Formats: sequence, structure tokens, C-alpha cells
Amino acid sequence: MTAIATLGSHCALQVLKGAKDEGLKTILVCERKRERLYRRFSFIDELILVDSFTEILEQKHQSILEQNNAVLIPHGTLIAQMSSEQIESIKTPIFGNKWILRWESDRTMKEKLMREARLPVPKPVLHSKDIDKLVIVKRQGAAGGKGYFLAANQEDYNKKREQLISQGIISKEETLYIQEYAAGVLAYLQFFYSPLKEELEFFGADQRHESDIEGLARIPSEQQLKNTKVPSFNVIGNSPIVLRESLLDEVYTMGENFVEASKRIVSPGMNGPFCIEGVYDENAKFTSFEFSARIVAGTNIYMDGSPYYSLLFNEPMSMGKRIAREIKTAKGTNQLDKITT
Amino acid sequence: MTAIATLGSHCALQVLKGAKDEGLKTILVCERKRERLYRRFSFIDELILVDSFTEILEQKHQSILEQNNAVLIPHGTLIAQMSSEQIESIKTPIFGNKWILRWESDRTMKEKLMREARLPVPKPVLHSKDIDKLVIVKRQGAAGGKGYFLAANQEDYNKKREQLISQGIISKEETLYIQEYAAGVLAYLQFFYSPLKEELEFFGADQRHESDIEGLARIPSEQQLKNTKVPSFNVIGNSPIVLRESLLDEVYTMGENFVEASKRIVSPGMNGPFCIEGVYDENAKFTSFEFSARIVAGTNIYMDGSPYYSLLFNEPMSMGKRIAREIKTAKGTNQLDKITT
Amino acid sequence: MTAIATLGSHCALQVLKGAKDEGLKTILVCERKRERLYRRFSFIDELILVDSFTEILEQKHQSILEQNNAVLIPHGTLIAQMSSEQIESIKTPIFGNKWILRWESDRTMKEKLMREARLPVPKPVLHSKDIDKLVIVKRQGAAGGKGYFLAANQEDYNKKREQLISQGIISKEETLYIQEYAAGVLAYLQFFYSPLKEELEFFGADQRHESDIEGLARIPSEQQLKNTKVPSFNVIGNSPIVLRESLLDEVYTMGENFVEASKRIVSPGMNGPFCIEGVYDENAKFTSFEFSARIVAGTNIYMDGSPYYSLLFNEPMSMGKRIAREIKTAKGTNQLDKITT
Repeated sequence: MTAIATLGSHCALQVLKGAKDEGLKTILVCERKRERLYRRFSFIDELILVDSFTEILEQKHQSILEQNNAVLIPHGTLIAQMSSEQIESIKTPIFGNKWILRWESDRTMKEKLMREARLPVPKPVLHSKDIDKLVIVKRQGAAGGKGYFLAANQEDYNKKREQLISQGIISKEETLYIQEYAAGVLAYLQFFYSPLKEELEFFGADQRHESDIEGLARIPSEQQLKNTKVPSFNVIGNSPIVLRESLLDEVYTMGENFVEASKRIVSPGMNGPFCIEGVYDENAKFTSFEFSARIVAGTNIYMDGSPYYSLLFNEPMSMGKRIAREIKTAKGTNQLDKITT
Repeated sequence: MTAIATLGSHCALQVLKGAKDEGLKTILVCERKRERLYRRFSFIDELILVDSFTEILEQKHQSILEQNNAVLIPHGTLIAQMSSEQIESIKTPIFGNKWILRWESDRTMKEKLMREARLPVPKPVLHSKDIDKLVIVKRQGAAGGKGYFLAANQEDYNKKREQLISQGIISKEETLYIQEYAAGVLAYLQFFYSPLKEELEFFGADQRHESDIEGLARIPSEQQLKNTKVPSFNVIGNSPIVLRESLLDEVYTMGENFVEASKRIVSPGMNGPFCIEGVYDENAKFTSFEFSARIVAGTNIYMDGSPYYSLLFNEPMSMGKRIAREIKTAKGTNQLDKITT
Repeated sequence: MTAIATLGSHCALQVLKGAKDEGLKTILVCERKRERLYRRFSFIDELILVDSFTEILEQKHQSILEQNNAVLIPHGTLIAQMSSEQIESIKTPIFGNKWILRWESDRTMKEKLMREARLPVPKPVLHSKDIDKLVIVKRQGAAGGKGYFLAANQEDYNKKREQLISQGIISKEETLYIQEYAAGVLAYLQFFYSPLKEELEFFGADQRHESDIEGLARIPSEQQLKNTKVPSFNVIGNSPIVLRESLLDEVYTMGENFVEASKRIVSPGMNGPFCIEGVYDENAKFTSFEFSARIVAGTNIYMDGSPYYSLLFNEPMSMGKRIAREIKTAKGTNQLDKITT
């Protein structure tokens, strides 16, 4: 008997529903404050209640997971709330590659892997005095976009940075990261790489809803110009998008390049779900500004299957179910070590 | 034998398709001018043709509904086209709570119920001279957003109001309702409360497409500034959105607070589908500017099931089907009086 | 045995998956550079490899299609890459009406058919000196929106046209086509007309994501005004939308008017899938700026069925599957000539 475990947030519902549909036991590591929410869902077999997610490092919780032959599915909350060292020290087998999560969290390593994968990245701007066109200013880690801002020049950068510091949104010491702003159609490309089949699957794409930048679109310019508030990029939700079919070949190529680069520089490579995040410009050229080396919350829009997976599977297949299917297959053929770390 | 009846507009197709899928008889109260549209759908068993929806108050139509043991599903068109008194005088059992529809239609009662439910509401602005930041100006009732406008100050308010009056869009006598404008990511939260199970279900969320405010987003500022037209908020359609999972706990809490407040002040409470409508700001804090105390048209995007309902049901489940399921269950256990008024 | 063939782009995956689900043989005319992409999908039975799509005019390829009793499904790529004469000379039976594709490609014929169908069209502006409100400037043919631009007056028109010429995006000789810009909620209305059932079906609606005009919405006015770049309208993808139910009657009427007008002026009429493309203004009045006389890529969002088709079919039904279903029915009743040209 195998169990699937994950932290209670991000895409836990999708992951555990998929696991249950595949006949696996489901375990949720759940903050006490969220217990009421997750008790609503009957497909969650067992709750491990904690006050903070870092408690899963404790022996007693690790033991429960071990007794259940649990595989832990990592997601954005794991990365946001635990350090790379903590994640790497988890004894429970982690689906995919736990070592690559450090490459997602650290801006310098992230850029290195993206260059290695030949992903077209926005030009970094090393110093605020070098800002000569629209830039986006980001923070370290998977902060969900809160505190990100746009700036047109150094003066603008300083003004907005100080405004955000005075509001307590960013801290004075924080190293900010400046990129040329890539404008166009946002697309978050969701993949699954199966080391069992040695095949890459394109699952789907989504767009993020970020607040309050999204609200700008509905405020007439006349009113916008009277307002000095710095718009932010706090992710609130996701919506579906399908891509022009002529873009799919390059989508797959980018995914494969990422899988291959990961194999070379962070063994055993990019196994399981991941996401390449970027924007299509007016020439339909893609620029990638981020990747996620694990399931993304954007897959939640396809809780009952995605358009692209309906091409590959003759049944409704969410990303959570795909993960569970992979674990079942690996278990059945004694290859769990191939898909976990 | 039970029948489901509804007015031909808003979400009638979804409601009656769901009823047919549950094996119930379906009756549409249909304006003659729309007969051709609705005859296209074979799941509609019977049409009651009228020139105006208020005719359903007439004895002959009430009799047909009575003979069929019909339950009437109320929606936005019922509220838009009939007064609260008329709705309350309908003899046919109405699904949910017909008394609460008055609280939706009347701005003052609406605000009272929202405060009672501890929903965070935008600050009302009592007089146009008090406008000191961006506000939205609304009309009474469920007008679908037509004639709503934004204003930055009293001068702006007067200019736009007069422009809309001169265009015949609003009338001189009409009382307008001014709220501080909440900017960010719009989310219309769709719920179903079952008094049979005494459980609240979160069905899904949608975003509204409103004209012509949505078109603004595609007009460069340079051109916007040359244009004096007042953008409007006429609802044209809806699109799906899923929320960051960490927001769900608060979503359920808001829904439960609304259900409990309704139980206290408008018996028998908020039974069946309802919607809390608002916006997430840059801190992911929700502000609610409206509620609908019945099924909303935004559920039409999930005609074959929503992402969140696929967590609760192991079959495709639309809101229309959910309603029919509740009626069937109530009928089978002799509890129809518990879910109708 | 009947086969379905199509060109490898646009909506080929949806079309062939639908055909396979209906038990038909599937053939893809595939550019060699895209072979790797399409080999990933096991529902494609046979690939005809070409260097350029015009090769399907060659006898050897026509023979293969003939031997397989293939019906060719036309889509946007066929129109974009071949002339009307070339398309009309194809020997393989083409689903729908190949003669109407010329009416889609040619602006003058297109307008004529739209007027004949009584579609409300935006006012054409015959000369750039006549621009007195916001206009959109378009190119001939199905260019996917690249090189389209907005202009507020003649000076603006000249400036932007010259900028695009100097960037090599449009050519100096190219005839541009100027229309009054219709602002509001974009909606691409997808239909299927069955000459076998003599019935029009409304399949669904979508919105297009165009770059980089879509990106404007996320750039504050202050920054937009500092930027001189001309936004473009290159289609990147599509998202789902459902319409207010009170709009559906007019949607069907527009579709039927289009079908009838097509019957009158371009025999055998508008059979199979088509799309009426336009925008709803603040009075919910629709203005149509284009039509597509064949399947549109926006149907790809409904790869596993659309909300509106779930009202008509008790099974997941994509547009690709609907086409295959029609061909199977025609074949089984010896009416293939009724649905192909």
C-alpha cells in the first residue's frame, strides 16, 4: 500500500483527489487553523495536524509518513515556507527531484539553469542606474508576486522602492532583482516529464490573475494618472488558455531542453510536473522569466482534465491524478526510486 | 412526479438541462419572442408562453405549475422584471428563500444583511461632495451594470451623471448609490447551501465581462485620453477562474457567515445557490460589493461541472443539476417544505 | 472506410482526435519541420510529409488521399498558405464549402457577404484623411492580426504605418483596410450548420489573446505614455467565455442569417463549422468585424466539449468530433456529396 502526502495549501485538494481516484491512500499535513477547511473533503483519508509546516521534519511525523509508505508531493508552499536545507533533509521520499527545488528558489541558480536550458530570458538589469526602459523589480523566492513593481527609470525605481519600504511591504535590506519588462500575452506552460516512459507531456497553459495590477485594466487612464499607488503582483487565481497550435512545437522543445539541462546539472533531472513561465511578444516569440520545478497552482483550473491532456488520455486526467498514476506505475514495477528523491 | 420550472432567460438552459439529467419534468415560462430559441432544446418538456413574465402571477399559469407539482427556480430575470411584492405573491413553491430576494433588490436591506454577515464591504459615500478617491456609482436593483460609472471627484461625478442623463441611460430622479471603488482581481464566489445536509458547498468562481469597461484595456492611454465617453458596466458574459487554495478557508467562512446571518434575519435563511461578489486587493484581502441570493449566470460557464465540484462529486455536476438533485432528495424524503418557500 | 485529413497546424490535433474518437482513420499533412511534434500523438494514423503545404496539390499526395477516401477539413492555415485558386483546385473532397473560403479571404467579398447576411458591421473608413475617431487598421487575408494597429487620426495613421513599414512588418505597397474601432467585450461566436439535419447549432464562444495589445492592460498609463511602440494584434491563444443567456436568441439569428445568405450567394452555402467575430458594446449590441467560413482555432479550448454543446449532446463533443460525426452520418446514409465540395 502506497500513500500520497502533501502540505495543506496550493494544490493539495487536486493532488489528493487525484490520488484517491487512483486508489491510493491520502494524507494531508495540515495546519490546525486550516483543519476545518480540509475536513470538508472526504477524499482525504488522514490529517497530520501541525502548527507550522516545518514540523514535518520531526521524527514523529516522519514516522507516520514512513509507516504509510508515503510519497510527498512538493509544491509552492513547501518552497515558500521551508529552506532548501530543510527540504533536502526530509526523509520521506519526495516525488520528482528535491534537489532541483533549490535551483528554483535561488535567483542566481535559477538563471543558470534557464541559460543552460537555452530558455530565452529577459535581460537582467544589474543596477537601478542602468534602467533605460520599462523594468519589473522582483523579490527573491516564491513570494507569489507580492511587492513586485514596475519602474521606468532610476528615479521611478527609487520612489517606488521607498514607498514599498515605508509601507512595510519590502525591507530596506532586501536584495531586489531587476529584469527588462517583457510585455505581451502571459502564458504559464505546464509540463509533466515521466522518467518511466522517458516522455515529456504538455499538460496545458494558464494565465495568472494578479492584484492589483489586473485592476488597472478597468481604470480609465484619466483616473490612473491621478493615482500614485504602486500596483502589485499578488497572485489571486488562474484562468485557462489554449495556445495557437503553431506554437506547440517550440513549447515542447523548450520543455525538452529544460528536461535535458536539468539531467546534466542537477541529477536525476526534472522528473514529474514543472512549469515554464513567460510571455509571448508581438512576434509570438516567447520570453521566459521564471520556472517552477514542481506542480504549479495553475493546474487547479484543470481539476477534471485539461484540453491538451484530453489528446493524450481517454479519460479525465488532472495533474494530481497524473502524478498518482506515475507513482502507481512505478510501484507496480518496482521503480519508485526512479521517480522520487 | 415533480417538475422544475423557470423563466426563459439568465440560466434557464442550465437549470432545465440539469433537471432533465436528474429525471425531472422541465417547464419553461417563455416569452413568445423567445419561443424559437428555446424550442431548439429538446430537454425542455413544456413551454408556458407569455407576453410578459409577470403573467405567471395569473391563475391559469399558476394552475399549470400546480398540476405539475412544479418547483420554480428563481434567477436574476425574476428579480429584474418583477417587484418583491409580486415575487412574494407567487403561489408556486420557490426553490430557496423567496423572502431573501427582497434583501438582494433593496440597497439598504442588502447592506444590512452584508454587515450582519460580517462581509467586508466598500465604504459607502453618502454624498457626491464627499468623493475624495475613486468611486463607483451604481443604480438600484439588478440592472446588470448598465449605467454604472466611475468618478474621481464631485465635478467628475456631476459631469458623467449629466452625460448619462442626457443620453437617456439614467433618469434625473434616480437615486444613485456611491461606493469607494475597490480595485484588484474580481471574483464572484458561487455557493450552494443544503438545508438537508446542513452543509455549505463552494461551487466555483467566475469573472464577469462588462461592456464597454473591458474594452478600455485594449485602448492605449494616449487614445483613451482623447476620448470623453463614459465607460459602462453592462454584463455580457462570464469566464472561469480558480482561486489560490490558501484563500479557500476564508471563502468558506464568508459563505457560512452569510448563511448564518440569513438564518437569523430572514427565515428560513439562505438555502440553495447564492453568490458573494467582490474583489481581491493586493494583500489578497476580499471586499464584497454585492451578493445574489439565488443562482447567478456565472454558473453557466460550468454547464458540465466546475473544478471545485469535481472535488465533491464523482460525476459532472452543474449548479442546475445540483438544484435538481436537492429537490429530488427532498421529495424522496418528504422534505420539500425545507427547501422551498 | 473513410479517412479524415487536415493540415498540421491550427486545430489539427482537435480535428484528428475527434475523428479517431468517431472511429475514422486520421491523416495529417505535415511539414517535415513539425514531424516530431505530431508523432507524439498516437491518434494520428498516417503522416503525409511535405516541405510546404502547397505540395498537397501534387498528384502523388492527392492519390494517397483518394485511396483513403479522405475528406479534407479546411482551417485557417489552408487559407493563410494557399490562394483561393489553389484551394479550389484541390481534388480531395473538402468538408463544408470550399467556394466560400474565397469570400473569407477577400475583404470586398467578405464585406458583401456580411451585408447580405445583415450582420452589423463597423463603418469602413475609405481614406485615412477621413479618420475622425478611433479606427483599427487591418491587412488583407487571415494574417492572424500581426501588423494591425489603432489610429486616432490621419497623422497618427501615417506615423504608425511608416513605423511598421520601416520595421518590415508591413510593406509600402500593401493596401490597408480601415474600420471604425468597435470597443467593448470581444466575442467569437462558433457555430455548426448541418445540411443533413438542416439545423444550426451554437457551439460556444471564445476570446482571443493578442500580443502585444493584451499586455497594455498591465502597464500603468504613466508608463504607457512614455512609450512610442505601436501595439500589435498577433493572436497567441484563446480563452472560454459564456454569454448572457438573453443574448442567445440574437446569436442564433445572426448565425441563421449568415447560413441563409451563404445559400443564396455561394452555393451550397455555409455548411459545417463557422465563426462570427465581433464585439458587444455597452448596450449589448453586437458589431461583427469578421467571419471565418470554417472551423476556428478558438474551438481548441473546448477540446473535450463546450458548455453549449453539453446542452445538445449527452457526451463530450468537441467541434472536431462534431465534424467527424457529420461525416460518419453522411457516409452511412450516402450523402457525402451534401456536406463536401
